[in-house]
Formats: sequence, C-alpha cells, structure tokens
Amino acid sequence: MADNSDRLSFAIDLAQRAGSSALASFRKLETLTIEKKGHQDLVSEADRDTETFIRAEIAKAYPDDAIVGEEHAPTSGTSGWTWVIDPIDGTANFVSGIPQWCVIIAAVKDGEIEVGVIEEPCSGETFSAARGKGAFVNGRPMKVSDATSLGEGSVGAGYAAREDEKAAIAVLADLLGQGGMFFRNASGGLMLAYAAAGRLIGYIEESMNPWDCLAGMLMITEAGGTVLMPAPEALTAQRVPLVAGGPGVYDAIETLARTHLPTV
Amino acid sequence: MADNSDRLSFAIDLAQRAGSSALASFRKLETLTIEKKGHQDLVSEADRDTETFIRAEIAKAYPDDAIVGEEHAPTSGTSGWTWVIDPIDGTANFVSGIPQWCVIIAAVKDGEIEVGVIEEPCSGETFSAARGKGAFVNGRPMKVSDATSLGEGSVGAGYAAREDEKAAIAVLADLLGQGGMFFRNASGGLMLAYAAAGRLIGYIEESMNPWDCLAGMLMITEAGGTVLMPAPEALTAQRVPLVAGGPGVYDAIETLARTHLPTV
Repeated sequence: MADNSDRLSFAIDLAQRAGSSALASFRKLETLTIEKKGHQDLVSEADRDTETFIRAEIAKAYPDDAIVGEEHAPTSGTSGWTWVIDPIDGTANFVSGIPQWCVIIAAVKDGEIEVGVIEEPCSGETFSAARGKGAFVNGRPMKVSDATSLGEGSVGAGYAAREDEKAAIAVLADLLGQGGMFFRNASGGLMLAYAAAGRLIGYIEESMNPWDCLAGMLMITEAGGTVLMPAPEALTAQRVPLVAGGPGVYDAIETLARTHLPTV
Repeated sequence: MADNSDRLSFAIDLAQRAGSSALASFRKLETLTIEKKGHQDLVSEADRDTETFIRAEIAKAYPDDAIVGEEHAPTSGTSGWTWVIDPIDGTANFVSGIPQWCVIIAAVKDGEIEVGVIEEPCSGETFSAARGKGAFVNGRPMKVSDATSLGEGSVGAGYAAREDEKAAIAVLADLLGQGGMFFRNASGGLMLAYAAAGRLIGYIEESMNPWDCLAGMLMITEAGGTVLMPAPEALTAQRVPLVAGGPGVYDAIETLARTHLPTV
C-alpha cells in the first residue's frame, strides 16, 4: 500500500489555504454590484487562480506527481501519483452567492484513491480521508448513515444540465414513491462529503467528473459506506456514474440507479 | 402604515441571539456520539428551547402582541400585532449535521407582513426586511434576480413528505424540460432568503406553514420580486402555496405552479 500520510497532511493544509483564498473572492463578489458578465469573469478568475495556486504548491512539494484539474490541461509525472483537483466545486453557488461550495483535492496511485480532501470554507468544515486510515471532519471520525431504508433520511441527488433529465426525474420520482427524500445543494463534492458524514444516507448521479467525486468516494468508503467503483484505469480518465450509500441502503440506491440511469 | 422600525431592530437582535444559542446546540450535537433516539430528543429540545426563549423575549418587550410558533400553542394579544416564529427551519439538516438551517421571526399587523428576519448562523448571514423599507443581508441591500428566463438560474423547490409527490415531480420535470434547474437544501426559509438575494431566481412549493414563509415572502417583495400573496386573513392562519420570483421569471414560475400544483 502506498504511503499516503505525507500527502494527506499536505492536501489538508493546501485545501484550507486555497479555501481561504477562494472565500476572500467569494466575500468580495458579495459586496460588489457588478454586471452579470463582469461577475462571471470574476468567478472564472477565482476558479482559475485557485487552481493555479494549488498546482504551483503541488509542483513545489511533489514535482514528480501528475496533475489533473478542471480548469487547466493535465500535466504528467513520473512518480506514479496523480493529483485530481477541483478548485471550486459548486460554481453556480459561488457565482450566485450561496455559501455551499468547496475546494476538492484528491490523490491517486496505482488505480487506488489514496487521499481525499473536501474543504468547505463558509461554515468552516474540512473533510478528509486517506486509504486505510479512516475519514474525518474537522478531525472527528466520520461514519456513514446506519439507515436501513430509504425513508430514514435524504439521498443526495446530483444533476447537471449535460445529463439525461428524464433519467434524473425518474430517479427522483421512484425515490419519493418509496417514501424517500432528495437533497440537491448544487455541489456534488459537498453532498458526497455529507454522505460520508452520515448526514445524507447516500448519493446518486448519472455521471461525475473525476475531480468532483474521487475525494468523496474515498471518504464514503473509509467511513464504512459502499461506492460503485469504476475500473482503476477509469478513475482519473473519464466521467463515471456515482452510486453510494450506507450499508443498509446502498442496494436500494443501486437499484434506483440500475433501473433509471443509462450509465449504470 | 404600521411603525415597524422598533420591531425590526428587536427581531434582528432576537434572531441573532436565538441563532447563537441554536448553533451551540448544533455544534454539541456534532461532537456527540449518541443513539438515534437520544439524538432526536436533543434536537427537539433545542427546537423547543429556542422557541421558548424567543417567546419569552417577545413577551417581555411586547407583552400585548400575539405569538404563533411551530412548537408551542399560539398565545393571543391585544395590540393587533402577531409574531410568527420558527425556532429552527430545516430541522432535518439540523438533526443530521448539515449546516443549512435558520431561525425565522416575522411580525404581522392588519393582514400585512411588517417585519421578517431569517438568521443563518452557520455561515453567519442575517437576512431582514421591513415593509416599505427594503430587504438586507448583513446590512447590504438585497435585490431579486434579474433573470428573464428559467434557464438563467436555479429555482428553489420546496417539498415536504406531506405534499403531493406526483405534483412536485411534475414541477421538476417541467422545469428541467424548459432548460431550468432546481435547488433543494431542505430549508424553505433559507431558500426564500436566497431568492430575495437573487441567488435563486425564484421559489415554488405546494404548501408552506406561515412560520416557514412569511419572513421570506416579505423579503422577496421588498427586494423587488413578486410573490403569490394569500388573502390577509390566511397569512397567520393556514398553510399557503408559495410561488415567488424575480420580475422576469415570476410568470413562468406561476405557470409551473398553476399547471401542476393542486393548491394553486
């Protein structure tokens, strides 16, 4: 098993620093009265600047690691480690002023997610996990929900405009029909962290980008949950369907996915 | 027009104090590892205690005002003013540890909502409005979205298990079919505040309790938006459908409601 301890500490510190910087931009956006176009530019700038900062810090600390991110082209490495980063997940919230967005940093080696950090600066929560070492929120251990039926909590429902809207609606209709409930706060990363913390009983989405989901997938697994894992070679390379849940509800959520989502 | 200035200042201060106290309970819940039942009891206690505190402070400052709240029986008054309070809106989030819940305080006189405050302690936002005096978040003026089509932002979609699930799903399907997007963070009060701040372009729900919606309805109106207003006598007395939006999208949201919701 890869030694992930140093990269975990590094990623936590880095995500917190990136989060502080993005939070400053977020607060600045709130106080500005600007044109829609100018506003969007400022957001894109915050997004790009945050990724640039994260990349530079990784390149300094781990110059031989590869990096894949949402905003810039991938860089290759020789160490076998690949960092996968989303500078601001929940951009629509960030743009509009909703304090529900996060910085996501994950590290993968040999087809395994080794490190995952999700930093949510607005209410001050740092979610983190390393493979084999558990998952934590602000240093406290996380545990997935012990719900045994869909009626015992809410399922995070991810949906992006590029996805099949009829499939997404069919999932919601089936879920509500079974007495369940959905939650959609427009940050897939944050919803996965909430699933790891047992705040949501699970998560379902037709397809997610690696930078949106790898950290959360590791957290859910380390917190005792089940995740539909893609093939190792797909992890950093392509969008994957996301199905996850506590052990008592995972099967029911996977059934929802297999019944309605074309990608599962 | 009723003089609402003193009650506005009072309500802001009171909501902030109640919010701090509820936040302390929320943080305590997070650090406890307790049985589900014990957990629920603690939450109910926080909910009831917060309402008891708010009621006591109102009774001290405005002994002749009536009070309607979620957790206790209504008390009557002689001043013509009625306070309508929800100690913790978004209880499911509060229970599960999701930092998206709020304290709501509204005051009504002569069939008009005069004062509304929504306090969100986790990220530190105070939303407030008084009739005829505008709406504010942390002291900055709020303005509803200037979106002109449903594709330009997200609509808050409220849904509670008591509501018609098929109607809720039909709204979502129609909204997505028109290129729109939904947001559901499980706190109706907070979503209404977000709509007032232009973070969501509007809001739709089959039925809301007065304590969940009065403050937000006033905010949206004062921030330049449109709200489907119930008859004055219904304001504090019964559940009402909630349809609201910026001026450029209100009609489209009302059409969604009229097409699919049995209550509209």
